[in-house]
Amino acid sequence: RVDGERLWDSLMQMAQIGPGVAGGNNRQTLTDADAEGRALFRQWCEDAGMTMGLDRMGNMFMRHEGAEPDLDPIYIGSHLDTQPTGGRFDGVLGVLAGLEVIRSVRDMGITTRRPIVVTNWTNEEGARFAPAMLASGVFAGVLTEDYANSRTDAEGKRFGYELERIGWRGDEAPGDRRIHAMFEYHIEQGPILEAEGKQIGVVTHGQGLWWLQVTLTGKDAHTGSTPMNMRVNAGLGMARIIEAVHRIAMDHQPDAVGAVGQANVWPNSRNVIPGRAVFTVDFRSPDLAKLNAMRARLEDEAPRIAADLGLGIEIEPVGHFDPVTFDPGLVEKVRNAAERLGYSHMNIVSGAGHDACWINRVAPTVMIMCPCVDGLSHNEAEEITPEWASAGADVLLHAVLDAAEI
Amino acid sequence: RVDGERLWDSLMQMAQIGPGVAGGNNRQTLTDADAEGRALFRQWCEDAGMTMGLDRMGNMFMRHEGAEPDLDPIYIGSHLDTQPTGGRFDGVLGVLAGLEVIRSVRDMGITTRRPIVVTNWTNEEGARFAPAMLASGVFAGVLTEDYANSRTDAEGKRFGYELERIGWRGDEAPGDRRIHAMFEYHIEQGPILEAEGKQIGVVTHGQGLWWLQVTLTGKDAHTGSTPMNMRVNAGLGMARIIEAVHRIAMDHQPDAVGAVGQANVWPNSRNVIPGRAVFTVDFRSPDLAKLNAMRARLEDEAPRIAADLGLGIEIEPVGHFDPVTFDPGLVEKVRNAAERLGYSHMNIVSGAGHDACWINRVAPTVMIMCPCVDGLSHNEAEEITPEWASAGADVLLHAVLDAAEI
Ligand SMILES: NC(=O)NCCC(=O)O
Ligand SMILES: NC(=O)NCCC(=O)O
Repeated sequence: RVDGERLWDSLMQMAQIGPGVAGGNNRQTLTDADAEGRALFRQWCEDAGMTMGLDRMGNMFMRHEGAEPDLDPIYIGSHLDTQPTGGRFDGVLGVLAGLEVIRSVRDMGITTRRPIVVTNWTNEEGARFAPAMLASGVFAGVLTEDYANSRTDAEGKRFGYELERIGWRGDEAPGDRRIHAMFEYHIEQGPILEAEGKQIGVVTHGQGLWWLQVTLTGKDAHTGSTPMNMRVNAGLGMARIIEAVHRIAMDHQPDAVGAVGQANVWPNSRNVIPGRAVFTVDFRSPDLAKLNAMRARLEDEAPRIAADLGLGIEIEPVGHFDPVTFDPGLVEKVRNAAERLGYSHMNIVSGAGHDACWINRVAPTVMIMCPCVDGLSHNEAEEITPEWASAGADVLLHAVLDAAEI
Repeated sequence: RVDGERLWDSLMQMAQIGPGVAGGNNRQTLTDADAEGRALFRQWCEDAGMTMGLDRMGNMFMRHEGAEPDLDPIYIGSHLDTQPTGGRFDGVLGVLAGLEVIRSVRDMGITTRRPIVVTNWTNEEGARFAPAMLASGVFAGVLTEDYANSRTDAEGKRFGYELERIGWRGDEAPGDRRIHAMFEYHIEQGPILEAEGKQIGVVTHGQGLWWLQVTLTGKDAHTGSTPMNMRVNAGLGMARIIEAVHRIAMDHQPDAVGAVGQANVWPNSRNVIPGRAVFTVDFRSPDLAKLNAMRARLEDEAPRIAADLGLGIEIEPVGHFDPVTFDPGLVEKVRNAAERLGYSHMNIVSGAGHDACWINRVAPTVMIMCPCVDGLSHNEAEEITPEWASAGADVLLHAVLDAAEI
């Protein structure tokens, strides 16, 4: 078993970097805090005898050598970046549990045939630069480097520029690595494991996703002196489309969700009818047909809502992946590890997107989940117990040792 | 008649200060650009032989002496501050037309018995610090100085602090002035005069207003892994209340308007269900019963919408005035001036709030309006013609001379 106390200490130390305002973290990708978190992780890995590889997307590959260095390595990876008001465990747990696996392997004096590489994927969250899982998407060849570098944040700063600025752009070509198997350990970010009283989620599938960005164009005008019938109110159009997104998701129950997370109006002044609104739509389902049907219905309804109000509309897809089926052989290894260790477990579908969803397209991949309190995530109050954290890390250790061939 | 070309030149010079991004202005109250605009206006007035009074709210009183300095003066006033994406004429026209009246009176060698004071009222727009007409409200004794000084902008900066910072806080106690009559000349900011083909609006009444600020509290959570029935979505609540505001205004047609101008959600991230929403409601009517009925209905409906979604709600009134009836004697003087000058005119109700609405409570007050293209205001594309500007200024000159007693 891993050293659960050491794992928890590392989690708490990392949470000191980029603190939030309510006990969580704001360590968004490519900020100074991100650079600081990366440096600490690198130091810890090097202290554990690992060597760093860094690609042009800033993906960090910390290598623990195997007895047969020429064999394709086993990867363990997740992300150190957080939401603007994020928790201390989302992503971080998977990276630091990977480090803990190596520390434990060294403590136990075990040598694996295959090398093990612990990875920090850049910009998993997608909060600052859409879409999420940007750098693992480039690694998997689904997105291009040019596309990634040109993504801008709300202030108009480019991903490529910010990556250079914080000093974490490497030389290696993204995707130029052979992967024998990849493991991602993550908190569930939903309520199911806790409700079912299970310690381990064996992740068999991941939901697919459509991210759309909607822009409505009306006419700024005075709230007091513009008669109701002369208004071209982009804020009202936004309200109606937010309601439509909700209704569409409800009409596709079960196994479908939908919400608007970002919503902005211009000029955002009390006595000005908004002349412009920009907002984001997030639809997900494990069922490809439902996923595409939700998008299609929005693309049918939203333009009619806009037209009714005299608004111009643009709907731009800014993120997508199909539902994912993880590698059955690796799923079996995870289930066996949980059995062997005596942890309660169940099959589960990942509600969130993860780097594993992209890597699964280029290498056999699987995920392990632990519960989180009240299913809360993307919230500073996100919480897990040290026992939950280490149970999943134990399963990770056993499954990885199985794959890395002792 | 006034010198229309000189008036237009001054308007265009003032528009150089705090330029917008699309041909209009961003000269919000108590910014550096506001300070620059004030200094230019002061210089012009002093060049025309006027002397400055300045009160603790930053209200500027530029005095042109009368033959009998002890008589209560005639006031001409409006505001030099603009919306964040404002036009070049809203407010500015009334201040600079006041200056033009004095310049013309001097050119013509006319002496009035009463002094004439041209006023720039601080923070009429209310975009940066709510409510609108803040400093004229303090002058009229409707709002307190402490209340005004404590108002904060979106960055949390206090009105009192910002007024000191730009160097425009005076010593005079606000309201410590006797006013024989006050005239405010303003663009209509609505479509009626242009549609009716009239050069002059004789403003008999002003709409009343309720400004409410609504805060909804839900729970930040992951858009992907949180089942639909476990969401407490503040953004969805905001959408439903925006729709309710619209419906309530439509149900009170005619003579009623309502809209949401400011709308913000937190943390405003694509994959986070908003846990908090703050937005503003603006209801107006010339009919007090309708005005209050709209507020009451929102205060009934919005909490039910919130409760349905499990959201906490707070509704705070942040601005109010009752409908206004302007002074019938002064209204008559304005109508007579328009007649005498041969300008087409009609009675009109002001859709917007104006400093005149507050001053009317402490002194006889009236407004004069000119049309604006497409009724567009609070928009950088706000437009009037030089002819429209000078026709209203001519009426202002004649009505003021009538009141100031030549
Ligand atoms: N795990 C996680 O929150 N990833 C961000 C992408 C998503 O929104 O699912
Ligand atoms: N005239 C004007 O736009 N004043 C601002 C206050 C209001 O919204 O009516």
